Amino acid sequence: MSSLAILNIGQLVSLIGPNRGRVGQEMSDLGLIYGAGILVQDDRIRAVGPSEDIALEMPADAVIIDAGGRVVTPGFVDAHTHLVFGGNRCQEFELRSQGATYQEISSKGGGIHSSVEATRSVDEESLLARSQKWAHKLIQMGTTTAEIKSGYGLNADSEFKMLRVIRDLRRTTPLRTVGTLLAAHAIPKDQDKDDYLKHITTHMIPEASCSGLARYVDIFVEENYYSAECARKIAGAAKKHGLGLRMHVDQMRDGHGAALAAELGAITADHLEQTSPAGIGAMKAANTIPVLLPTSVFGLRHEKYPVARAMIDAGLPVVLATDFNPGSSPSPSMPFAMSLAMLNMGMSAAECLTAATINAAASLELAHELGSLEPGKVADIVIHEWEDYREIPYWIATPGVRTTICRGQKFDKVS
Amino acid sequence: MSSLAILNIGQLVSLIGPNRGRVGQEMSDLGLIYGAGILVQDDRIRAVGPSEDIALEMPADAVIIDAGGRVVTPGFVDAHTHLVFGGNRCQEFELRSQGATYQEISSKGGGIHSSVEATRSVDEESLLARSQKWAHKLIQMGTTTAEIKSGYGLNADSEFKMLRVIRDLRRTTPLRTVGTLLAAHAIPKDQDKDDYLKHITTHMIPEASCSGLARYVDIFVEENYYSAECARKIAGAAKKHGLGLRMHVDQMRDGHGAALAAELGAITADHLEQTSPAGIGAMKAANTIPVLLPTSVFGLRHEKYPVARAMIDAGLPVVLATDFNPGSSPSPSMPFAMSLAMLNMGMSAAECLTAATINAAASLELAHELGSLEPGKVADIVIHEWEDYREIPYWIATPGVRTTICRGQKFDKVS
Repeated sequence: MSSLAILNIGQLVSLIGPNRGRVGQEMSDLGLIYGAGILVQDDRIRAVGPSEDIALEMPADAVIIDAGGRVVTPGFVDAHTHLVFGGNRCQEFELRSQGATYQEISSKGGGIHSSVEATRSVDEESLLARSQKWAHKLIQMGTTTAEIKSGYGLNADSEFKMLRVIRDLRRTTPLRTVGTLLAAHAIPKDQDKDDYLKHITTHMIPEASCSGLARYVDIFVEENYYSAECARKIAGAAKKHGLGLRMHVDQMRDGHGAALAAELGAITADHLEQTSPAGIGAMKAANTIPVLLPTSVFGLRHEKYPVARAMIDAGLPVVLATDFNPGSSPSPSMPFAMSLAMLNMGMSAAECLTAATINAAASLELAHELGSLEPGKVADIVIHEWEDYREIPYWIATPGVRTTICRGQKFDKVS
Repeated sequence: MSSLAILNIGQLVSLIGPNRGRVGQEMSDLGLIYGAGILVQDDRIRAVGPSEDIALEMPADAVIIDAGGRVVTPGFVDAHTHLVFGGNRCQEFELRSQGATYQEISSKGGGIHSSVEATRSVDEESLLARSQKWAHKLIQMGTTTAEIKSGYGLNADSEFKMLRVIRDLRRTTPLRTVGTLLAAHAIPKDQDKDDYLKHITTHMIPEASCSGLARYVDIFVEENYYSAECARKIAGAAKKHGLGLRMHVDQMRDGHGAALAAELGAITADHLEQTSPAGIGAMKAANTIPVLLPTSVFGLRHEKYPVARAMIDAGLPVVLATDFNPGSSPSPSMPFAMSLAMLNMGMSAAECLTAATINAAASLELAHELGSLEPGKVADIVIHEWEDYREIPYWIATPGVRTTICRGQKFDKVS
C-alpha cells in the first residue's frame, strides 16, 4: 500500500457535503478548511484534517508533499468536451475574427465538417497520440476527469474509432475519461439523413452500449442539424440500450430544447444560451442538470451567455464545462471557463468551483466517487500556486496549477 | 564562448525587416522561414538559415535543441505592465462580476488605492520576492522583456522602492525590465494634489533620471486623476531631465488624450479605447505609437475596444500589451492579449505577433536589439508547442510555451 500526505494546505476547498449536485446557497459552501492536511492511500483519500493531525497519523513511509500554505481543490471535472479530433481550425478562428459568422464558415464547408474530414483521415494510432497530448494538457491545467464526445466521424467506422481512442486515453494517461456517442453531431454529407438516423438508432447505439465504449448518447438539436423528432428517436434507442442521454440544446436560438431534454429524461441539457424561463422550469421539474459552456459563447463572439443566475435561483445544480473543441471553443481551461462565468454570467468564485467539481461529477453520475475531498473518495487533487481559491478564476489565462494528483499519483509537470 | 543551436524549426517567425515599428501591410509580413535553424553564441543570434546549414556550421560543443518541427518566435515584449504590486484584488474581481463598476469600487476605497496601501506596507525584500514569481511566470509564458511602471506608491519612498524592485528584477531573473515612473497614477489620499504634482516634477523626475531607475515617465490622464495641464507640467519635467514620455489616455472617455500625447511628443499613447479619428490623425502626424490593452477592456467588462483596424489603416505601428495589474487586468498573458485582439479588434494573427514583438520593441526604443530573430540581435527566443503561428492566439488561455531562451540561456520550466 502506498501512502501520500499533503501537509500545510493554506485553504482546502473540501466541498464536503451531499454526494449530489448542490443547489442554491449550497453552491456557495465550499467546506473551506484552513491549515489542513490530506492522507492518501493508494488511489483513495483516507483522511482529511488539521495538518498536524495528518502528520501524526501518516505511515512512516508516506511520500510528503508540502503545500506551502497554498490552495488545494478537487481535480476539475470537465463534463462536456470534444477533445478527440483531427486537424485544427486556426484558419477559421482568423476568419471569425475578420467578421465571418459560425454559420457562414459552416456554409463554406468549414465548421464541424472540416473536423470530420480531418478526423476521418487520421489513423487511430495517430488520433490517440494527438489526444494523449491534450489529455496531458488537461492534467497540467488541473482537470482530472473529462467527458469526451465522438461526433467528428459521422459514420460507424470513425465514430467508433473516436470512442476507442476515448477508452484508450483512460488506459494510457492519468485522465479519467467518460465516453459519449454523439453520432448526431451534424448531418453527414455522404449519407441520407434518415438512413443515417436509422443507422444510429439500430446499429451505433446498440454497439456503443454492448461494447461499453459509451456511457451516454448526445444529440445536437438545432436548425440544420437535428430536430426534436430525431431527438425522440435517439432518446428512445438510448433508453432501450441502457445509455444515459445528454443534449446540445438552445445554443443558437430558443428551440425549446431545455423542455425537450426534460421531456426525454436527459440527465443534462448543455449550452442553453437562449433558454427561456419556461425551459428552466421544465428542467427543474424533471431534475435535468444544466451544463453551461461560456467559452464557446466567447469563442463565437456571441453576446448572449446562459442565464446562470436565474438557473441557480431556480434551484438547478449548475455545471460549468469547457466545450473544448477545435471550432467554437479552442480552450480546455476550466479556470478560464470560470473567469468567463464570473465576468459574464454573474457567478461567484465559490459557485464556479462547485459547478466545476461536485456538480460536474453529479452530471456524470460520479458524485459518490469524485468532486469533493473526503475520506473514501478517489484521490484526484490539485495544488494550486495561489493562496485564495478566488485567485483561480481571477488570474485570467494564467497557468496556476502546481501539482495535479490523479488517483493518488502525483504529476508535477506532464508534457 | 557558449554556443546553442536550435534545429528543425517547423515555422520560424523571424520578423526580419527594418528595425522600427512596422506599419500597414508590413504588419502582416512575419518573415516566415520553414525548416529553419538558429545559431546562438553567448547572448546573441549568430546565424539564421536552413536547419541543415546551421547543423554544419555550429561548433562541436554547441548545445543542441531539437525544435521538433514546432513554431519559433522572438520572445514577447510586453510594453505596458504594472507587474510590481502588493496584495491582490480578487475580492474586487468578484464584486465586479456581481455588477459593480470600476468607478464604484474605486469610490469605496478599492481600485488603485487598495494596491497603493498594500504596496506601501510591504517591505522591499518581500516586494521583490513577489515580483520575481511574476517575472518567472512571464518567462514561462514567453515574455522576455517587460516595461514595468511604478504608481502604487504615490510618494517618493514607495515609488522608488518600486523602481528599485524593477531594476533588481532584471539583475536577479532572466526577464529584461524597463522602468517607468508613473508617480501620477492617481491622486494620493494623504497629500495635496498640487503639492504632490510639484514634488513629482521637482524631485521625483530628476531623481528617477539621475539614478537611472527609470527610462520613461508616465501619467494617467482621466477625470478624477490628472488633467491635460498636469500632463504638460510632467512632460516638461521629463523632457528637461532626459526621460521619454508614455501616457495613459482616452481609457474611460475621449479626453483628447491621443492628441495631447502627440502634442507633448510622447513616444507612446496607451489604452485609446475612446480615441476619435482626429486623435488617430494627430498620433500619425507626430509619430506617436499606440499601445493597445485589450485585456483591461475584457477585465473591466467594458464593451468598447480600441479601433485597431483604423489605426493600422492609418499607418500607425500598433503595439499589443497586457496592462498586467491586479485591478483591471489580472493577466500577464501575451497570447491571451492576442486572442482578444483577434476576437474583438479584428486583427489577424500575423498582425498580433508583429504588435507583440518588433513593434513593442520599437515602442521601448529597443528595436535595434530585440523583437526579431536575425544575426546580431539578442537571443530572446520562444519555442512554442504548436506547429503554426496562428495557433498561438487560437488555443485560448492554454499554456503553449515549450522553451523560453533569454539572452541565450534556456529555461524549460521556471517556477
